[in-house]
Amino acid sequence: MRDVLPQQAARREWMFAAVREVFRRHGYQPIETPAMERTETLLGKYGEEADKLLYFVQSSGSIADGKPLEWDKALRYDLTVPLARFVVRHRNELVFPFKRYQIQNVWRGDRPQKGRYREFFQCDVDVVGSDSLAHEADLTEILYECLTALRLPAFEIRINHRGLLQGLIEQAGLGDRFGEVCVAIDKLDKIGPDGVRKELEQRGIAAEAAERLLNALAFASETPQGLLEQLSSSLAESEPGHRGVAELGQVLKFLEHRPEVLAKVRIDLTLARGLDYYTGAIFEVVAPGSGIGSISGGGRYANLTGLFGLPGVSGVGVSLGIDRIYDALEAFGVFDELEAGTAPDALFILFSDEDRARLAPLMQSLRAAGLRCEWYEDSGHKLKKQFGYADRKAFKFALLSGEEEAKNGSVKVKNLKSGEETVLQIDQAESWLIAAVRI
Amino acid sequence: MRDVLPQQAARREWMFAAVREVFRRHGYQPIETPAMERTETLLGKYGEEADKLLYFVQSSGSIADGKPLEWDKALRYDLTVPLARFVVRHRNELVFPFKRYQIQNVWRGDRPQKGRYREFFQCDVDVVGSDSLAHEADLTEILYECLTALRLPAFEIRINHRGLLQGLIEQAGLGDRFGEVCVAIDKLDKIGPDGVRKELEQRGIAAEAAERLLNALAFASETPQGLLEQLSSSLAESEPGHRGVAELGQVLKFLEHRPEVLAKVRIDLTLARGLDYYTGAIFEVVAPGSGIGSISGGGRYANLTGLFGLPGVSGVGVSLGIDRIYDALEAFGVFDELEAGTAPDALFILFSDEDRARLAPLMQSLRAAGLRCEWYEDSGHKLKKQFGYADRKAFKFALLSGEEEAKNGSVKVKNLKSGEETVLQIDQAESWLIAAVRI
Repeated sequence: MRDVLPQQAARREWMFAAVREVFRRHGYQPIETPAMERTETLLGKYGEEADKLLYFVQSSGSIADGKPLEWDKALRYDLTVPLARFVVRHRNELVFPFKRYQIQNVWRGDRPQKGRYREFFQCDVDVVGSDSLAHEADLTEILYECLTALRLPAFEIRINHRGLLQGLIEQAGLGDRFGEVCVAIDKLDKIGPDGVRKELEQRGIAAEAAERLLNALAFASETPQGLLEQLSSSLAESEPGHRGVAELGQVLKFLEHRPEVLAKVRIDLTLARGLDYYTGAIFEVVAPGSGIGSISGGGRYANLTGLFGLPGVSGVGVSLGIDRIYDALEAFGVFDELEAGTAPDALFILFSDEDRARLAPLMQSLRAAGLRCEWYEDSGHKLKKQFGYADRKAFKFALLSGEEEAKNGSVKVKNLKSGEETVLQIDQAESWLIAAVRI
Repeated sequence: MRDVLPQQAARREWMFAAVREVFRRHGYQPIETPAMERTETLLGKYGEEADKLLYFVQSSGSIADGKPLEWDKALRYDLTVPLARFVVRHRNELVFPFKRYQIQNVWRGDRPQKGRYREFFQCDVDVVGSDSLAHEADLTEILYECLTALRLPAFEIRINHRGLLQGLIEQAGLGDRFGEVCVAIDKLDKIGPDGVRKELEQRGIAAEAAERLLNALAFASETPQGLLEQLSSSLAESEPGHRGVAELGQVLKFLEHRPEVLAKVRIDLTLARGLDYYTGAIFEVVAPGSGIGSISGGGRYANLTGLFGLPGVSGVGVSLGIDRIYDALEAFGVFDELEAGTAPDALFILFSDEDRARLAPLMQSLRAAGLRCEWYEDSGHKLKKQFGYADRKAFKFALLSGEEEAKNGSVKVKNLKSGEETVLQIDQAESWLIAAVRI
């Protein structure tokens, strides 16, 4: 757990505002779910390892009772299971396909390590109740627009499909080992083909089959469409393979009118994360050159709400790793640029409380124009102390109204970066400052 | 605990954005603290009753261990104690006076009842590390600006001061019963003078003393300044009374240049909530006519961080009761008006996938202009179904491009409220729609 200090908190607010705006423009609506869910809602939904990471909650009252504790409440572990529970519970109040985004904290009792926290934000965007591949395309656009709005200089949207992997694995004669093989393939990025070859061997898979699979995964093409064409002929015999080719082909077709988005898309046959539950497309986003791993992931899950008694409802969505994206933006120096533009605007230095009265209308009109302005708190403090505060808080301008200025209705504006001073009539200061801070 | 559905979640987002903007303009910065604090940080800080409402957290791992449980982590109960802990911990990284806002959930194991939840947002704005009364004035302006930005049609900012109450209570000869008397006075609003008289009697307070106190509390004046003048002479002998008059007088003076703010301020001598810890000014805001109780409260606390080993640091702040303000806005019908302006803008009805390609540039430029637009997901669906979706999601406009329109490069725009249809050339549709949705 950690505190978030002002600079980082302000950056996170900016990030959330930027992605929210993208979600809204695409017709997505926010929801919130409670921090605590019933234990039965969460337990057994994420696998055994994850069950061990759940946090349970007890009220002080039930501990004081002295009765055996029930452990019936746990903190949410992600936003997907709560979404499924939410959709089932409120199905009569929602418009389907239900497009929702949700930005809330989740908790996991993991051992803390660099870049991994016990409390962190998830930022999920999902469509529930539709099989249309238009949503896969829309989510790809959303990923593109979010990362562009966040000014991430480099990113790649990797897409795969369960059907393609199934086809390739079956073709290698390993259809009955699908899960295991996926786990090995998913490590290709990290351990390379030799590592995967070894791992498959250790799992008792024949060298020849492993080789055939690795060769197939190495299919490459200049364009996603080109790769799909190759796969179309090589997987012609495989039903799931055929479905994978057709579905991704349709998604690409829906994106044809956005070449800038398509330019960021790569079909990555080795992307196998989450294939124990995803049934169709799988997404992963990376930021090459940032030194950060995956910054977003997601996919289609044909039976999202089945566990809560509403079968046959398909969902597709992606989750933005806000903390990782934050790290990537920091690595690329994006915040430095940004903050040059978002420092507080003007500190009103005070020689006397009369200054306050005289400058009050100016203060008010600057704030009304959206500028961040403060009075220095105490006209009795020395100038040095007042300027010290301006400096530590990195104000762009200081405003002063000394005896001279008071007499002739003017105000002195000091640019705290350049040191340049400008004397303005009070009634001109508003427009001058508004123009100056926007440069 | 409760789910927040899209309509309510969107309204809350709007509210948070509005108040954040006010806080920022006044130079306040955001922070976040973790949901879980050490038990020792929270326990004993809110009184015995509150200690019973704390939620404790256990990781799955420590439960499985079988060792005696430690109960060393609890969910935060408010944002003030975490702020004090935060300031002490990060004192070398912060600029003082430290002006922060914080909008996060808190948890209390209360019995659920109407308008009271076990999980709810607090929205706090505080200055730490300064005695200047300029901050009391600034916070009053912030309250005014927040509630105005939220379009609350009626509200009153009630201010009192510990010194005034102390003076009046001492004058009635009840100085040694300060705490008890405050508890009784605080109920004046609900149980009236007779009720308070009875309660004081039950506490063994002489009828004469009670009468003297009730008479003093009934002091009234047209203006806050007028009331202070009355008190100035009646409390001339009381040191705390004198301090109260002087300090509130200074706050009012700082607000002189904002008559619209002063018009909402009332000095309320019966305001006694939180006087077990507030040491100076006390704030409470009500929304007369809404049927909702207090919607905001706060005050000055001269020894905010003393409990965490940093004595002599004064803080002053207010907390906006977002859930209550939400209820008040709903009672006044504010959201209805607002939502007429924030419904999703345009649904693109599809006859074929070619429509999508043809209308894609228009879709993109509308979204770039901030409009909320969606493709209907499946061109194969019947028109009735597509319009049904537009209707249930309350879109303002539907766009159609049938055979006719495709031929001559036009698009039909249907106003879904009036039913009016307009045929436009595609390249004119953007500016037409942008203008239309902003009416």
